[in-house]
Amino acid sequence: MTHPKKLNPTAAIIVIGDEILSGRTKDKNIGWLAEQLGAMGITLREARIIPDIKQVIIDTVLELSAQCDLVFTSGGIGPTHDDITTVAIATAFGKQVVRHPEAEAVLQKHYQNTDLEFNAARQKMADIPMDATLIDNPLSAAPGFILENVHVLPGVPSILQAMFKGLSARLPGGVVMTRITVQCAMGEGSIAAILADVQAAHDGISIGSYPWFKPGNFGTAVVISGLDGAVARKAAEAVAASVKAFGAAAFIVAAGDTA
Amino acid sequence: MTHPKKLNPTAAIIVIGDEILSGRTKDKNIGWLAEQLGAMGITLREARIIPDIKQVIIDTVLELSAQCDLVFTSGGIGPTHDDITTVAIATAFGKQVVRHPEAEAVLQKHYQNTDLEFNAARQKMADIPMDATLIDNPLSAAPGFILENVHVLPGVPSILQAMFKGLSARLPGGVVMTRITVQCAMGEGSIAAILADVQAAHDGISIGSYPWFKPGNFGTAVVISGLDGAVARKAAEAVAASVKAFGAAAFIVAAGDTA
Repeated sequence: MTHPKKLNPTAAIIVIGDEILSGRTKDKNIGWLAEQLGAMGITLREARIIPDIKQVIIDTVLELSAQCDLVFTSGGIGPTHDDITTVAIATAFGKQVVRHPEAEAVLQKHYQNTDLEFNAARQKMADIPMDATLIDNPLSAAPGFILENVHVLPGVPSILQAMFKGLSARLPGGVVMTRITVQCAMGEGSIAAILADVQAAHDGISIGSYPWFKPGNFGTAVVISGLDGAVARKAAEAVAASVKAFGAAAFIVAAGDTA
Repeated sequence: MTHPKKLNPTAAIIVIGDEILSGRTKDKNIGWLAEQLGAMGITLREARIIPDIKQVIIDTVLELSAQCDLVFTSGGIGPTHDDITTVAIATAFGKQVVRHPEAEAVLQKHYQNTDLEFNAARQKMADIPMDATLIDNPLSAAPGFILENVHVLPGVPSILQAMFKGLSARLPGGVVMTRITVQCAMGEGSIAAILADVQAAHDGISIGSYPWFKPGNFGTAVVISGLDGAVARKAAEAVAASVKAFGAAAFIVAAGDTA
């Protein structure tokens, strides 16, 4: 695949949580964020799921922060003892964690409207690394933050999604990749030579092939991606024409739609 | 969290595929494998999703192969030009890729029973790194392989699952972590002090807390994990008793079951 390293901002996702690695909870944030970033022209380079271990968080954040333009973390910023993301990321960048007056005011106001006490554990959610910028939380008040190029979000998918939507206007965008799917009534092994030829004949696109199986039926979804939409469309038409010449059905479906 | 590094084998998962990073396909293999490994007493240390780039595959496999007892990869072993996992992993360990007679025979037989041609692309799936051990594929014949401590599986979930089930008898097992969930009718912030106390009073367990929200209701699932089931149960009972003393409902649900 041709990665548009220069043209488009690059990103990494770090999901922090023992509950994902134990299999107890199925991650939903990587797939959702991947779609959002793709739609903004940001190239997701890598995603990692790591445990609630401070040194692992520090090492992973520093490694990916150096490699990518943007890093997004998910998980570990709640009020309990196992929420260690804030301290770990502050430590990674040599920052103190301090009570943030604006975060404290927002949380205090939020809890005044509930029958929940704004106790010491909840006050901890106002502790933010020095020099960080807050990320607004329209659902449950506890903010995320941006430190260097690291964007720190919670693990609960509904809250992460609401916060990312507010954050996204502040992120750099890129050229959105054109992605065209050609559904082919051929096995992946039958189509391989066609794809290799089309790939060789079209610069700057990448072709992925994804076999699928249903009872009594099978086929291959061929996905052509590229920053130049015209070239991607030409390649998609070339794949469809070659498959049809081979005697099998093929049709181009809307970009991103894979039936 | 206390990671049983000595007692239990450790593992990492590497999902290889641009289609996951683009958001087009949602990964289902990490969550499924995480559950299987947990049930076998194998500690999953990390999972990564990486692109179809040969050098990234090589670097990631070597890094995680050195850190963990077992590595599982998913994706990139099909018949098309974008299937580069086999060559990348062979390169990582300095091995040649050669046509494997047994794999070729199995594939040839499989395609004789279909109306599909055993063409050059499909023959490529019999190319296996020297010194690798085959992993049987009961669904679609194309084998995976084990090279050093790396277990190479396909990306299609149904095939990966069928192959892992055959493979699992060959894997080392460990002590299965006891995991007990206490459902608490309290917000995470109200329960934080209780959890910190229970954590401090019980050695060798880890306590995770996972807030949940439904229309008109909320609560926290507290998950106690430990290799010593008796200690984990004592800790779970302590959490439930403290929550009830606080005036809120709490009940212990079956291990792993989180309602």
